[in-house]
Amino acid sequence: MKLHNRRKFMTRAMLASGGLAMTRAAIAGPAKKGQVIHHVFFWLKNPDSKEDLQKLLDGLKSLEKIESVKQYHIGVPAPTDPRPVIDSSYAVSALSFFDDLAGQNAYQVHPLHKKFVETCSPLWKKIQVYDSADL
Amino acid sequence: MKLHNRRKFMTRAMLASGGLAMTRAAIAGPAKKGQVIHHVFFWLKNPDSKEDLQKLLDGLKSLEKIESVKQYHIGVPAPTDPRPVIDSSYAVSALSFFDDLAGQNAYQVHPLHKKFVETCSPLWKKIQVYDSADL
Repeated sequence: MKLHNRRKFMTRAMLASGGLAMTRAAIAGPAKKGQVIHHVFFWLKNPDSKEDLQKLLDGLKSLEKIESVKQYHIGVPAPTDPRPVIDSSYAVSALSFFDDLAGQNAYQVHPLHKKFVETCSPLWKKIQVYDSADL
Repeated sequence: MKLHNRRKFMTRAMLASGGLAMTRAAIAGPAKKGQVIHHVFFWLKNPDSKEDLQKLLDGLKSLEKIESVKQYHIGVPAPTDPRPVIDSSYAVSALSFFDDLAGQNAYQVHPLHKKFVETCSPLWKKIQVYDSADL
């Protein structure tokens, strides 16, 4: 069993044993094959507006409640050493994990997501999305 | 303070002030404050070469062994519904989580990472990196 899979197997075994009576938050990595990883980067129309940034963060927080979202992270550019290959020009990022494509589809049409787009899309000038299937 | 850094500072200051009543517990996902999320997208010189793809996947798998990598996912474009905001032109993606900036820095200079770059960089024509600080 490869290291990568072994870690996944161990996580599953731990969960199955009930030894970990924990929330999703404490799980060291999603364990389901075929997970969809949805990463969105936002550029604001008014990048210096604290108010707009706060509105976007508040909107993004609401998406975490969508049932099919299994892991969720809101981020800002990290102060890693600048390199030409790093894009740190965005204002906020949102990373969400779904068990499968159906979960991602359900998210897209969920009332909370629709409300988020309606409320927050006037704030951004650009978004960039990457959807990955976890191998 | 440059515009970019000021924005980061503002976000952190807002968080420190409690303006975001977002507890770590409420976030689904690893709970360590200050985690660095490193997402890299690769475009191959020979996108139709199964061999090159496999070499890159093998190289990426080796990076999981680096101690400071806390969560690791190798992906390919997911078959979500095409939208203009989705970039699905890359061949492979690698998503890694670090507890802090020091962990990411250690990864960059780790012998396994150096070996990966040496072995695999001739395979790619472009990489795009996003480093996010988890809020």
